[in-house]
Amino acid sequence: MTDIPENHPRYRSLVTRERIVQGMRDGIVAEAGLIAHGRGEALDYLMGERTLPEARKAEEIAVRVMKSADRSVISVNGNTVILAAREIVELAELTESVIEVNLFHRTPERISRITSVLEKVGAAEGVVLGAEADARIPGLDSERGKCSAAGIGNAEVILVPLEDGDRAEALKRMGKIVICIDLNPLSRTSRTSDIAIADEVGRALRNMIVFARENDAGTLGTDWRKLVEDFDNQAHLDGILNRIADRLVGLRSELDGQ
Amino acid sequence: MTDIPENHPRYRSLVTRERIVQGMRDGIVAEAGLIAHGRGEALDYLMGERTLPEARKAEEIAVRVMKSADRSVISVNGNTVILAAREIVELAELTESVIEVNLFHRTPERISRITSVLEKVGAAEGVVLGAEADARIPGLDSERGKCSAAGIGNAEVILVPLEDGDRAEALKRMGKIVICIDLNPLSRTSRTSDIAIADEVGRALRNMIVFARENDAGTLGTDWRKLVEDFDNQAHLDGILNRIADRLVGLRSELDGQ
Repeated sequence: MTDIPENHPRYRSLVTRERIVQGMRDGIVAEAGLIAHGRGEALDYLMGERTLPEARKAEEIAVRVMKSADRSVISVNGNTVILAAREIVELAELTESVIEVNLFHRTPERISRITSVLEKVGAAEGVVLGAEADARIPGLDSERGKCSAAGIGNAEVILVPLEDGDRAEALKRMGKIVICIDLNPLSRTSRTSDIAIADEVGRALRNMIVFARENDAGTLGTDWRKLVEDFDNQAHLDGILNRIADRLVGLRSELDGQ
Repeated sequence: MTDIPENHPRYRSLVTRERIVQGMRDGIVAEAGLIAHGRGEALDYLMGERTLPEARKAEEIAVRVMKSADRSVISVNGNTVILAAREIVELAELTESVIEVNLFHRTPERISRITSVLEKVGAAEGVVLGAEADARIPGLDSERGKCSAAGIGNAEVILVPLEDGDRAEALKRMGKIVICIDLNPLSRTSRTSDIAIADEVGRALRNMIVFARENDAGTLGTDWRKLVEDFDNQAHLDGILNRIADRLVGLRSELDGQ
Protein backbone atom coordinates (compact mmCIF):
# COMPACT_ATOMS: atom_id res chain seq x y z
CA MET A 1 0.00 0.00 0.00
CA THR A 2 1.06 3.58 -0.59
CA ASP A 3 2.02 5.72 2.39
CA ILE A 4 -0.57 8.47 2.53
CA PRO A 5 0.44 11.47 4.65
CA GLU A 6 -2.09 12.02 7.45
CA ASN A 7 -2.30 15.71 6.66
CA HIS A 8 -3.48 15.06 3.11
CA PRO A 9 -6.79 16.92 2.63
CA ARG A 10 -8.47 13.68 1.54
CA TYR A 11 -6.69 11.34 3.99
CA ARG A 12 -9.69 9.31 5.17
CA SER A 13 -11.05 8.97 1.70
CA LEU A 14 -7.65 7.81 0.37
CA VAL A 15 -7.20 5.22 3.14
CA THR A 16 -10.68 3.81 2.48
CA ARG A 17 -9.83 3.65 -1.21
CA GLU A 18 -6.75 1.58 -0.47
CA ARG A 19 -8.79 -0.81 1.66
CA ILE A 20 -11.23 -1.32 -1.19
CA VAL A 21 -8.38 -1.94 -3.64
CA GLN A 22 -6.84 -4.43 -1.21
CA GLY A 23 -10.27 -6.07 -0.90
CA MET A 24 -10.26 -6.62 -4.63
CA ARG A 25 -6.75 -8.08 -4.58
CA ASP A 26 -7.92 -10.44 -1.82
CA GLY A 27 -10.88 -11.62 -3.92
CA ILE A 28 -13.50 -10.06 -1.64
CA VAL A 29 -14.54 -7.04 -3.69
CA ALA A 30 -15.52 -7.48 -7.35
CA GLU A 31 -13.77 -5.30 -9.91
CA ALA A 32 -17.03 -3.49 -10.57
CA GLY A 33 -17.19 -2.91 -6.81
CA LEU A 34 -14.28 -0.48 -7.15
CA ILE A 35 -16.27 1.58 -9.63
CA ALA A 36 -19.31 1.43 -7.36
CA HIS A 37 -17.19 2.68 -4.50
CA GLY A 38 -16.12 5.66 -6.60
CA ARG A 39 -19.75 6.53 -7.32
CA GLY A 40 -20.49 6.46 -3.61
CA GLU A 41 -17.45 8.58 -2.84
CA ALA A 42 -18.59 11.33 -5.19
CA LEU A 43 -22.11 11.40 -3.81
CA ASP A 44 -20.90 11.33 -0.22
CA TYR A 45 -18.62 14.23 -1.04
CA LEU A 46 -21.56 16.22 -2.40
CA MET A 47 -23.51 15.52 0.81
CA GLY A 48 -20.62 16.81 2.89
CA GLU A 49 -19.56 13.37 4.15
CA ARG A 50 -21.99 13.49 7.03
CA THR A 51 -25.37 11.99 7.85
CA LEU A 52 -28.16 14.28 6.67
CA PRO A 53 -31.10 14.73 9.05
CA GLU A 54 -33.39 12.95 6.56
CA ALA A 55 -31.08 9.94 6.45
CA ARG A 56 -30.87 9.80 10.23
CA LYS A 57 -34.63 9.64 10.44
CA ALA A 58 -34.74 6.82 7.88
CA GLU A 59 -32.07 4.98 9.87
CA GLU A 60 -34.13 5.19 13.04
CA ILE A 61 -37.28 3.91 11.37
CA ALA A 62 -35.32 1.15 9.64
CA VAL A 63 -34.04 -0.09 12.98
CA ARG A 64 -37.52 -0.13 14.51
CA VAL A 65 -38.79 -2.11 11.53
CA MET A 66 -35.89 -4.57 11.65
CA LYS A 67 -36.29 -5.10 15.39
CA SER A 68 -40.04 -5.64 15.12
CA ALA A 69 -40.25 -7.88 12.07
CA ASP A 70 -40.06 -11.61 12.70
CA ARG A 71 -37.65 -12.40 9.92
CA SER A 72 -35.23 -9.63 8.98
CA VAL A 73 -32.17 -10.27 6.86
CA ILE A 74 -29.08 -8.16 6.21
CA SER A 75 -27.81 -8.85 2.70
CA VAL A 76 -24.08 -8.21 2.34
CA ASN A 77 -21.58 -8.02 -0.49
CA GLY A 78 -17.83 -7.51 -0.75
CA ASN A 79 -17.86 -3.73 -0.53
CA THR A 80 -20.04 -3.85 2.57
CA VAL A 81 -17.74 -6.14 4.53
CA ILE A 82 -14.65 -4.14 3.57
CA LEU A 83 -16.29 -0.92 4.71
CA ALA A 84 -18.27 -2.13 7.72
CA ALA A 85 -17.97 -5.82 8.66
CA ARG A 86 -18.03 -5.22 12.44
CA GLU A 87 -21.04 -2.95 12.14
CA ILE A 88 -22.94 -5.57 10.13
CA VAL A 89 -22.32 -8.23 12.77
CA GLU A 90 -23.29 -5.91 15.63
CA LEU A 91 -26.46 -4.62 13.96
CA ALA A 92 -27.49 -8.19 13.11
CA GLU A 93 -27.18 -9.15 16.81
CA LEU A 94 -29.04 -6.09 18.07
CA THR A 95 -31.91 -6.48 15.61
CA GLU A 96 -31.92 -10.30 15.62
CA SER A 97 -31.34 -10.32 11.90
CA VAL A 98 -29.81 -13.04 9.79
CA ILE A 99 -26.77 -12.14 7.66
CA GLU A 100 -26.77 -13.45 4.11
CA VAL A 101 -23.98 -13.01 1.57
CA ASN A 102 -25.74 -12.21 -1.69
CA LEU A 103 -23.67 -11.11 -4.66
CA PHE A 104 -24.10 -9.53 -8.06
CA HIS A 105 -20.81 -11.13 -9.17
CA ARG A 106 -21.40 -14.42 -7.40
CA THR A 107 -18.65 -17.00 -7.05
CA PRO A 108 -18.34 -19.66 -4.32
CA GLU A 109 -14.83 -18.39 -3.51
CA ARG A 110 -15.99 -14.82 -2.97
CA ILE A 111 -18.90 -15.97 -0.78
CA SER A 112 -16.52 -18.01 1.33
CA ARG A 113 -14.05 -15.12 1.68
CA ILE A 114 -16.76 -12.66 2.66
CA THR A 115 -18.10 -15.14 5.21
CA SER A 116 -14.59 -15.47 6.68
CA VAL A 117 -14.29 -11.69 7.05
CA LEU A 118 -17.57 -11.64 8.99
CA GLU A 119 -16.51 -14.56 11.18
CA LYS A 120 -13.20 -12.86 11.96
CA VAL A 121 -15.05 -9.88 13.43
CA GLY A 122 -17.45 -11.90 15.53
CA ALA A 123 -20.09 -13.69 13.47
CA ALA A 124 -20.56 -17.19 14.92
CA GLU A 125 -19.29 -19.93 12.66
CA GLY A 126 -21.97 -21.36 10.40
CA VAL A 127 -24.59 -18.66 10.97
CA VAL A 128 -23.77 -16.50 7.94
CA LEU A 129 -26.00 -17.68 5.09
CA GLY A 130 -25.43 -17.47 1.35
CA ALA A 131 -23.42 -20.46 0.22
CA GLU A 132 -26.37 -22.90 0.23
CA ALA A 133 -28.31 -21.15 -2.58
CA ASP A 134 -31.42 -23.29 -2.08
CA ALA A 135 -33.92 -20.60 -3.16
CA ARG A 136 -34.27 -18.10 -5.97
CA ILE A 137 -35.09 -14.44 -6.48
CA PRO A 138 -37.38 -14.59 -9.54
CA GLY A 139 -36.56 -12.21 -12.37
CA LEU A 140 -32.80 -12.19 -11.95
CA ASP A 141 -30.52 -14.33 -14.08
CA SER A 142 -29.38 -17.68 -12.80
CA GLU A 143 -26.27 -16.75 -10.78
CA ARG A 144 -27.50 -13.42 -9.45
CA GLY A 145 -30.87 -14.87 -8.48
CA LYS A 146 -29.49 -17.47 -6.09
CA CYS A 147 -30.32 -16.96 -2.45
CA SER A 148 -30.86 -18.82 0.80
CA ALA A 149 -34.31 -20.22 1.68
CA ALA A 150 -33.67 -19.58 5.37
CA GLY A 151 -32.50 -16.04 4.65
CA ILE A 152 -33.72 -13.83 1.83
CA GLY A 153 -36.13 -16.51 0.56
CA ASN A 154 -38.19 -16.42 3.72
CA ALA A 155 -37.49 -12.85 4.91
CA GLU A 156 -40.13 -10.24 5.71
CA VAL A 157 -37.67 -7.37 5.71
CA ILE A 158 -34.32 -7.13 3.91
CA LEU A 159 -31.68 -4.51 4.54
CA VAL A 160 -29.64 -4.19 1.36
CA PRO A 161 -26.60 -1.97 1.66
CA LEU A 162 -24.99 -1.04 -1.65
CA GLU A 163 -27.39 -2.88 -3.91
CA ASP A 164 -28.08 -2.97 -7.61
CA GLY A 165 -31.34 -1.63 -9.00
CA ASP A 166 -32.44 -4.86 -10.64
CA ARG A 167 -32.18 -6.71 -7.36
CA ALA A 168 -34.13 -4.16 -5.35
CA GLU A 169 -36.93 -4.36 -7.93
CA ALA A 170 -36.88 -8.17 -7.92
CA LEU A 171 -37.08 -8.26 -4.12
CA LYS A 172 -40.02 -5.87 -4.16
CA ARG A 173 -41.81 -8.12 -6.69
CA MET A 174 -41.33 -10.98 -4.20
CA GLY A 175 -43.31 -8.91 -1.71
CA LYS A 176 -40.38 -8.14 0.54
CA ILE A 177 -40.02 -4.93 2.49
CA VAL A 178 -36.76 -3.48 1.19
CA ILE A 179 -34.58 -1.06 3.14
CA CYS A 180 -31.55 0.07 1.17
CA ILE A 181 -28.44 2.03 2.03
CA ASP A 182 -27.53 3.86 -1.15
CA LEU A 183 -25.79 7.24 -1.46
CA ASN A 184 -27.58 7.96 -4.73
CA PRO A 185 -31.06 9.34 -4.01
CA LEU A 186 -31.84 9.12 -7.74
CA SER A 187 -31.00 5.43 -8.18
CA ARG A 188 -33.56 2.79 -9.01
CA THR A 189 -32.60 1.07 -5.77
CA SER A 190 -33.44 4.16 -3.73
CA ARG A 191 -36.63 4.86 -5.65
CA THR A 192 -37.81 1.23 -5.49
CA SER A 193 -37.08 0.62 -1.82
CA ASP A 194 -39.64 1.09 0.93
CA ILE A 195 -37.07 2.96 2.98
CA ALA A 196 -33.97 4.36 1.30
CA ILE A 197 -31.11 5.48 3.51
CA ALA A 198 -28.91 7.93 1.60
CA ASP A 199 -25.82 7.74 3.74
CA GLU A 200 -22.35 6.20 3.68
CA VAL A 201 -22.71 2.56 4.70
CA GLY A 202 -20.37 2.67 7.71
CA ARG A 203 -21.92 5.85 9.10
CA ALA A 204 -25.43 4.56 8.45
CA LEU A 205 -24.79 1.28 10.25
CA ARG A 206 -23.09 2.99 13.20
CA ASN A 207 -26.08 5.29 13.61
CA MET A 208 -28.40 2.31 13.35
CA ILE A 209 -26.44 0.49 16.07
CA VAL A 210 -26.92 3.48 18.38
CA PHE A 211 -30.66 3.53 17.64
CA ALA A 212 -30.89 -0.24 18.13
CA ARG A 213 -29.26 0.03 21.57
CA GLU A 214 -31.46 2.95 22.64
CA ASN A 215 -34.66 1.52 21.30
CA ASP A 216 -35.32 -1.16 23.90
CA ALA A 217 -39.02 -0.46 24.20
CA GLY A 218 -39.75 -3.84 22.72
CA THR A 219 -41.11 -4.55 19.30
CA LEU A 220 -44.06 -2.96 17.58
CA GLY A 221 -45.70 -6.28 16.74
CA THR A 222 -47.48 -6.16 13.44
CA ASP A 223 -47.50 -2.36 13.61
CA TRP A 224 -44.09 -2.28 11.95
CA ARG A 225 -45.87 -2.68 8.63
CA LYS A 226 -47.80 0.50 9.34
CA LEU A 227 -44.53 2.25 10.11
CA VAL A 228 -43.30 1.25 6.65
CA GLU A 229 -46.55 2.29 4.97
CA ASP A 230 -46.48 5.68 6.66
CA PHE A 231 -42.92 6.35 5.49
CA ASP A 232 -43.09 8.51 2.35
CA ASN A 233 -39.91 7.40 0.60
CA GLN A 234 -40.32 9.74 -2.39
CA ALA A 235 -40.77 12.81 -0.20
CA HIS A 236 -37.86 11.62 1.86
CA LEU A 237 -35.56 11.33 -1.18
CA ASP A 238 -36.72 14.71 -2.44
CA GLY A 239 -35.61 16.15 0.87
CA ILE A 240 -32.17 14.65 0.32
CA LEU A 241 -31.98 16.09 -3.21
CA ASN A 242 -32.89 19.52 -1.85
CA ARG A 243 -30.10 19.27 0.72
CA ILE A 244 -27.54 18.40 -1.93
CA ALA A 245 -28.74 21.19 -4.21
CA ASP A 246 -28.60 23.71 -1.35
CA ARG A 247 -25.13 22.56 -0.43
CA LEU A 248 -23.84 22.93 -3.99
CA VAL A 249 -25.08 26.49 -4.14
CA GLY A 250 -23.73 27.19 -0.64
CA LEU A 251 -20.33 25.74 -1.47
CA ARG A 252 -19.95 28.19 -4.32
CA SER A 253 -19.48 31.19 -2.07
CA GLU A 254 -17.33 29.20 0.34
CA LEU A 255 -14.93 28.14 -2.41
CA ASP A 256 -14.96 31.55 -4.08
CA GLY A 257 -13.83 33.08 -0.79
CA GLN A 258 -10.67 30.95 -0.68
CA MET B 1 -17.11 -10.00 -20.18
CA THR B 2 -20.71 -10.14 -19.12
CA ASP B 3 -23.41 -9.91 -21.76
CA ILE B 4 -25.29 -6.72 -21.05
CA PRO B 5 -28.71 -6.51 -22.70
CA GLU B 6 -28.89 -3.45 -24.96
CA ASN B 7 -32.23 -2.44 -23.49
CA HIS B 8 -30.78 -2.15 -19.99
CA PRO B 9 -31.55 1.39 -18.73
CA ARG B 10 -27.85 1.95 -18.02
CA TYR B 11 -26.48 0.10 -21.08
CA ARG B 12 -23.85 2.62 -22.19
CA SER B 13 -22.65 3.20 -18.69
CA LEU B 14 -22.35 -0.56 -18.08
CA VAL B 15 -20.41 -1.16 -21.30
CA THR B 16 -17.98 1.64 -20.44
CA ARG B 17 -17.57 0.12 -16.99
CA GLU B 18 -16.59 -3.20 -18.52
CA ARG B 19 -14.04 -1.51 -20.75
CA ILE B 20 -12.46 0.16 -17.74
CA VAL B 21 -12.36 -3.14 -15.85
CA GLN B 22 -10.78 -4.82 -18.88
CA GLY B 23 -8.29 -1.95 -19.03
CA MET B 24 -7.24 -2.77 -15.48
CA ARG B 25 -6.89 -6.48 -16.29
CA ASP B 26 -4.69 -5.48 -19.24
CA GLY B 27 -2.43 -3.37 -17.01
CA ILE B 28 -3.48 -0.07 -18.59
CA VAL B 29 -5.75 1.34 -15.90
CA ALA B 30 -4.54 1.49 -12.28
CA GLU B 31 -6.76 -0.06 -9.62
CA ALA B 32 -7.44 3.39 -8.20
CA GLY B 33 -8.46 4.36 -11.73
CA LEU B 34 -11.56 2.19 -11.36
CA ILE B 35 -12.60 4.15 -8.28
CA ALA B 36 -11.89 7.41 -10.10
CA HIS B 37 -14.08 6.24 -12.95
CA GLY B 38 -16.92 5.63 -10.51
CA ARG B 39 -16.61 9.16 -9.14
CA GLY B 40 -16.82 10.52 -12.65
CA GLU B 41 -19.81 8.32 -13.44
CA ALA B 42 -21.78 9.69 -10.49
CA LEU B 43 -21.03 13.30 -11.35
CA ASP B 44 -21.80 12.79 -15.02
CA TYR B 45 -25.10 11.23 -14.00
CA LEU B 46 -25.95 14.30 -11.91
CA MET B 47 -25.18 16.54 -14.89
CA GLY B 48 -27.51 14.51 -17.07
CA GLU B 49 -24.73 12.84 -19.09
CA ARG B 50 -24.54 15.71 -21.55
CA THR B 51 -22.27 18.68 -22.15
CA LEU B 52 -23.48 21.70 -20.20
CA PRO B 53 -23.39 25.05 -22.04
CA GLU B 54 -20.69 26.31 -19.64
CA ALA B 55 -18.51 23.30 -20.39
CA ARG B 56 -18.95 23.76 -24.13
CA LYS B 57 -17.73 27.33 -23.85
CA ALA B 58 -14.69 26.20 -21.86
CA GLU B 59 -13.99 23.55 -24.50
CA GLU B 60 -14.04 26.14 -27.27
CA ILE B 61 -11.68 28.49 -25.45
CA ALA B 62 -9.39 25.60 -24.53
CA VAL B 63 -9.06 24.67 -28.20
CA ARG B 64 -8.22 28.23 -29.22
CA VAL B 65 -5.56 28.38 -26.52
CA MET B 66 -4.08 25.02 -27.48
CA LYS B 67 -3.98 25.93 -31.15
CA SER B 68 -2.34 29.28 -30.48
CA ALA B 69 0.25 28.35 -27.89
CA ASP B 70 3.65 27.32 -29.24
CA ARG B 71 4.09 24.31 -26.99
CA SER B 72 0.90 22.58 -25.89
CA VAL B 73 0.92 19.11 -24.38
CA ILE B 74 -1.89 16.62 -23.77
CA SER B 75 -1.11 14.60 -20.66
CA VAL B 76 -2.75 11.17 -20.70
CA ASN B 77 -3.24 8.34 -18.23
CA GLY B 78 -4.77 4.86 -18.40
CA ASN B 79 -8.37 5.92 -17.91
CA THR B 80 -8.06 8.53 -20.65
CA VAL B 81 -6.84 6.10 -23.30
CA ILE B 82 -9.49 3.52 -22.41
CA LEU B 83 -12.22 6.13 -22.70
CA ALA B 84 -10.91 8.23 -25.59
CA ALA B 85 -7.64 7.14 -27.23
CA ARG B 86 -8.74 8.04 -30.78
CA GLU B 87 -9.96 11.44 -29.66
CA ILE B 88 -6.65 12.20 -27.94
CA VAL B 89 -4.69 11.39 -31.09
CA GLU B 90 -7.00 13.43 -33.30
CA LEU B 91 -7.07 16.47 -31.03
CA ALA B 92 -3.28 16.37 -30.72
CA GLU B 93 -2.99 16.48 -34.51
CA LEU B 94 -5.52 19.28 -34.93
CA THR B 95 -3.97 21.44 -32.21
CA GLU B 96 -0.35 20.47 -32.95
CA SER B 97 0.03 19.23 -29.40
CA VAL B 98 2.46 16.69 -28.06
CA ILE B 99 1.03 13.66 -26.23
CA GLU B 100 2.75 12.67 -23.01
CA VAL B 101 1.87 9.68 -20.85
CA ASN B 102 2.09 10.96 -17.28
CA LEU B 103 0.85 8.76 -14.46
CA PHE B 104 -0.04 8.96 -10.80
CA HIS B 105 0.68 5.23 -10.46
CA ARG B 106 3.72 5.25 -12.71
CA THR B 107 5.31 2.02 -13.89
CA PRO B 108 7.38 1.54 -17.08
CA GLU B 109 5.05 -1.32 -18.13
CA ARG B 110 1.94 0.83 -17.84
CA ILE B 111 3.56 3.68 -19.79
CA SER B 112 4.50 1.27 -22.53
CA ARG B 113 1.01 -0.27 -22.68
CA ILE B 114 -0.68 3.13 -22.81
CA THR B 115 1.70 4.21 -25.56
CA SER B 116 0.79 1.08 -27.53
CA VAL B 117 -2.91 1.85 -27.24
CA LEU B 118 -2.30 5.32 -28.68
CA GLU B 119 -0.14 3.95 -31.50
CA LYS B 120 -2.80 1.39 -32.39
CA VAL B 121 -5.31 4.17 -33.01
CA GLY B 122 -2.99 6.31 -35.11
CA ALA B 123 -0.25 7.98 -33.09
CA ALA B 124 2.99 7.79 -35.08
CA GLU B 125 5.54 5.46 -33.57
CA GLY B 126 7.98 7.21 -31.26
CA VAL B 127 6.09 10.50 -30.96
CA VAL B 128 4.25 9.73 -27.71
CA LEU B 129 6.41 11.01 -24.85
CA GLY B 130 6.54 9.84 -21.26
CA ALA B 131 8.98 6.95 -20.96
CA GLU B 132 12.13 9.11 -21.02
CA ALA B 133 11.41 10.90 -17.70
CA ASP B 134 14.25 13.39 -18.15
CA ALA B 135 12.58 16.25 -16.27
CA ARG B 136 10.71 16.72 -13.01
CA ILE B 137 7.54 18.38 -11.75
CA PRO B 138 8.77 19.97 -8.49
CA GLY B 139 6.66 19.30 -5.40
CA LEU B 140 5.51 15.80 -6.33
CA ASP B 141 7.18 12.71 -4.95
CA SER B 142 9.84 10.95 -6.97
CA GLU B 143 7.80 8.64 -9.19
CA ARG B 144 4.81 10.91 -9.69
CA GLY B 145 7.04 13.91 -10.44
CA LYS B 146 8.77 12.35 -13.43
CA CYS B 147 8.02 13.92 -16.80
CA SER B 148 9.49 14.55 -20.21
CA ALA B 149 11.67 17.60 -20.84
CA ALA B 150 10.38 17.85 -24.42
CA GLY B 151 6.78 17.54 -23.22
CA ILE B 152 5.42 18.75 -19.88
CA GLY B 153 8.83 20.10 -18.82
CA ASN B 154 8.91 22.65 -21.61
CA ALA B 155 5.18 23.15 -22.21
CA GLU B 156 3.35 26.46 -22.15
CA VAL B 157 -0.09 24.88 -21.97
CA ILE B 158 -1.02 21.45 -20.63
CA LEU B 159 -4.36 19.72 -21.11
CA VAL B 160 -4.80 17.31 -18.23
CA PRO B 161 -7.83 15.07 -18.55
CA LEU B 162 -8.71 13.18 -15.34
CA GLU B 163 -5.96 14.58 -13.15
CA ASP B 164 -5.19 14.52 -9.46
CA GLY B 165 -5.35 17.71 -7.42
CA ASP B 166 -1.72 17.62 -6.28
CA ARG B 167 -0.51 17.48 -9.84
CA ALA B 168 -2.62 20.37 -11.08
CA GLU B 169 -1.28 22.50 -8.22
CA ALA B 170 2.31 21.46 -8.94
CA LEU B 171 1.94 22.31 -12.63
CA LYS B 172 0.53 25.71 -11.75
CA ARG B 173 3.52 26.36 -9.47
CA MET B 174 5.75 25.61 -12.48
CA GLY B 175 4.01 28.49 -14.26
CA LYS B 176 2.12 26.30 -16.71
CA ILE B 177 -1.28 27.16 -18.08
CA VAL B 178 -3.41 24.21 -16.97
CA ILE B 179 -6.60 23.13 -18.72
CA CYS B 180 -8.28 20.20 -17.00
CA ILE B 181 -11.14 17.92 -17.91
CA ASP B 182 -12.70 16.96 -14.58
CA LEU B 183 -16.34 16.14 -13.90
CA ASN B 184 -16.07 17.42 -10.35
CA PRO B 185 -16.47 21.22 -10.33
CA LEU B 186 -15.53 21.23 -6.64
CA SER B 187 -12.23 19.38 -6.98
CA ARG B 188 -8.86 20.98 -6.32
CA THR B 189 -7.96 20.19 -9.92
CA SER B 190 -10.93 22.17 -11.22
CA ARG B 191 -10.42 25.05 -8.81
CA THR B 192 -6.65 25.23 -9.46
CA SER B 193 -6.79 25.05 -13.25
CA ASP B 194 -6.88 28.09 -15.49
CA ILE B 195 -9.67 26.52 -17.50
CA ALA B 196 -11.67 23.63 -16.02
CA ILE B 197 -13.84 21.61 -18.35
CA ALA B 198 -16.54 19.83 -16.32
CA ASP B 199 -17.55 17.24 -18.88
CA GLU B 200 -17.07 13.54 -19.56
CA VAL B 201 -13.65 13.12 -21.18
CA GLY B 202 -14.85 11.47 -24.41
CA ARG B 203 -17.61 14.01 -24.96
CA ALA B 204 -15.29 16.89 -24.09
CA LEU B 205 -12.63 15.75 -26.54
CA ARG B 206 -15.15 15.12 -29.33
CA ASN B 207 -16.52 18.63 -28.88
CA MET B 208 -13.00 20.02 -28.88
CA ILE B 209 -12.24 18.18 -32.12
CA VAL B 210 -15.25 19.83 -33.74
CA PHE B 211 -14.11 23.25 -32.53
CA ALA B 212 -10.54 22.58 -33.67
CA ARG B 213 -11.77 21.71 -37.18
CA GLU B 214 -14.05 24.77 -37.38
CA ASN B 215 -11.61 27.19 -35.91
CA ASP B 216 -9.26 27.61 -38.86
CA ALA B 217 -8.90 31.37 -38.51
CA GLY B 218 -5.29 30.85 -37.57
CA THR B 219 -3.72 31.34 -34.18
CA LEU B 220 -4.13 34.25 -31.84
CA GLY B 221 -0.41 34.77 -31.43
CA THR B 222 0.46 35.91 -27.94
CA ASP B 223 -3.14 36.95 -27.43
CA TRP B 224 -3.96 33.46 -26.26
CA ARG B 225 -2.60 34.43 -22.84
CA LYS B 226 -5.15 37.22 -22.69
CA LEU B 227 -7.86 34.70 -23.55
CA VAL B 228 -6.79 32.65 -20.52
CA GLU B 229 -6.59 35.70 -18.26
CA ASP B 230 -10.06 36.82 -19.28
CA PHE B 231 -11.55 33.42 -18.51
CA ASP B 232 -13.10 33.56 -15.02
CA ASN B 233 -12.73 29.94 -13.96
CA GLN B 234 -14.41 30.40 -10.56
CA ALA B 235 -17.49 32.01 -12.05
CA HIS B 236 -17.50 29.32 -14.68
CA LEU B 237 -17.47 26.51 -12.09
CA ASP B 238 -20.17 28.28 -10.09
CA GLY B 239 -22.31 28.20 -13.20
CA ILE B 240 -21.79 24.43 -13.41
CA LEU B 241 -22.73 23.99 -9.74
CA ASN B 242 -25.89 25.99 -10.31
CA ARG B 243 -26.79 23.76 -13.25
CA ILE B 244 -26.36 20.60 -11.18
CA ALA B 245 -28.36 22.05 -8.29
CA ASP B 246 -31.17 23.10 -10.62
CA ARG B 247 -31.20 19.69 -12.21
CA LEU B 248 -31.45 17.90 -8.86
CA VAL B 249 -34.44 19.98 -7.90
CA GLY B 250 -35.96 19.52 -11.36
CA LEU B 251 -35.44 15.76 -11.27
CA ARG B 252 -37.49 15.52 -8.13
CA SER B 253 -40.76 16.25 -9.84
CA GLU B 254 -39.81 14.13 -12.85
CA LEU B 255 -39.12 11.08 -10.68
CA ASP B 256 -42.11 11.68 -8.44
CA GLY B 257 -44.34 11.57 -11.50
CA GLN B 258 -43.20 8.05 -12.41
